Amino acid sequence: MSFDNNKKMALSKQDKSKKGSLDAPIAGLVQAINASPDLYTTSSCSGRIVLLTQPMSAKKDQSGWIFASHEPVMPADVLKAIRLFRGNDAVWFRMEGFILHACCRTIGDAARLVLLARDAGIKRSGIISATDRKISVEIIDTERIDCPIAADGRLAVSESYVQWLVEVANQKLERTREKIKKVKEAFASF
Amino acid sequence: MSFDNNKKMALSKQDKSKKGSLDAPIAGLVQAINASPDLYTTSSCSGRIVLLTQPMSAKKDQSGWIFASHEPVMPADVLKAIRLFRGNDAVWFRMEGFILHACCRTIGDAARLVLLARDAGIKRSGIISATDRKISVEIIDTERIDCPIAADGRLAVSESYVQWLVEVANQKLERTREKIKKVKEAFASF
Repeated sequence: MSFDNNKKMALSKQDKSKKGSLDAPIAGLVQAINASPDLYTTSSCSGRIVLLTQPMSAKKDQSGWIFASHEPVMPADVLKAIRLFRGNDAVWFRMEGFILHACCRTIGDAARLVLLARDAGIKRSGIISATDRKISVEIIDTERIDCPIAADGRLAVSESYVQWLVEVANQKLERTREKIKKVKEAFASF
Repeated sequence: MSFDNNKKMALSKQDKSKKGSLDAPIAGLVQAINASPDLYTTSSCSGRIVLLTQPMSAKKDQSGWIFASHEPVMPADVLKAIRLFRGNDAVWFRMEGFILHACCRTIGDAARLVLLARDAGIKRSGIISATDRKISVEIIDTERIDCPIAADGRLAVSESYVQWLVEVANQKLERTREKIKKVKEAFASF
């Protein structure tokens, strides 16, 4: 009964993400998972392009976001966000593939979900908690860009490089969305 | 008995990595894990800095390595490898944190190992296989740099940017090794 109660509670909660709502490209997969009596999602992101500020100490609690998009971006938007940032911290350009967390009724359900995701090409998938209280799975696509592009208030690369980076990031965003579809199709046989 | 046989087989095999031997910074942790009767490692890397070539299609089977180091690198070495590469493919600069795979006797052992790694700060840790035949855990540090820096035979960034990138990568390599030590210390209470 505890799993069913937890599921009910989780699905009735308000969306706690910075965005405050479910990303459209991953909504179908999330709904399919939540329609299973043995699973429910606790968080998801359909992939994004962000700019993070980070002090040289690389302390995470001192990091901040100055730009975030779940849609393809324009180089001008990225350059503008960097220009507007007043600080000496390094600014990192990051593209992250999709991510999804799901709670599972049994360890067998969790193992099947991981297998399904890995078979669909999402290699960073695993059971991240397996206690009496909670069994949960993390599915992460490996599409990624992660590099510092500004520091001390100055761009460390050329604008044409930012243009290229954005182009590659937008392609990766498209690719991660294709992978979401692949996982959703595979999930039909869960 | 099957787990014990598999462990014996795995530990007697020749090292299959490109490097052909165990990285010194992770050897202590690997040995500690293998000293446990309920675990054995199947692969590990103590973190590395690599240059990968990748066609625009991003097909992994067409990717290649043109540089790899498990030790801090010099900007000149990176620049030289790019200069020597004859091809139009994009060249990606990548720093990867440490990674370790371990087989576990029971799902309980696997869950405890994941918990230990996550508590020690290695958030990308999970049970990636949980079948009757094999229970295995993946532990991956998230320290990372991943960006294209050359294409069409030309560097797309300045040499001073490569210098900065290498500096940050070397710092991250140091940090991933500190995390290996942390996991090893935590493992004493496994």
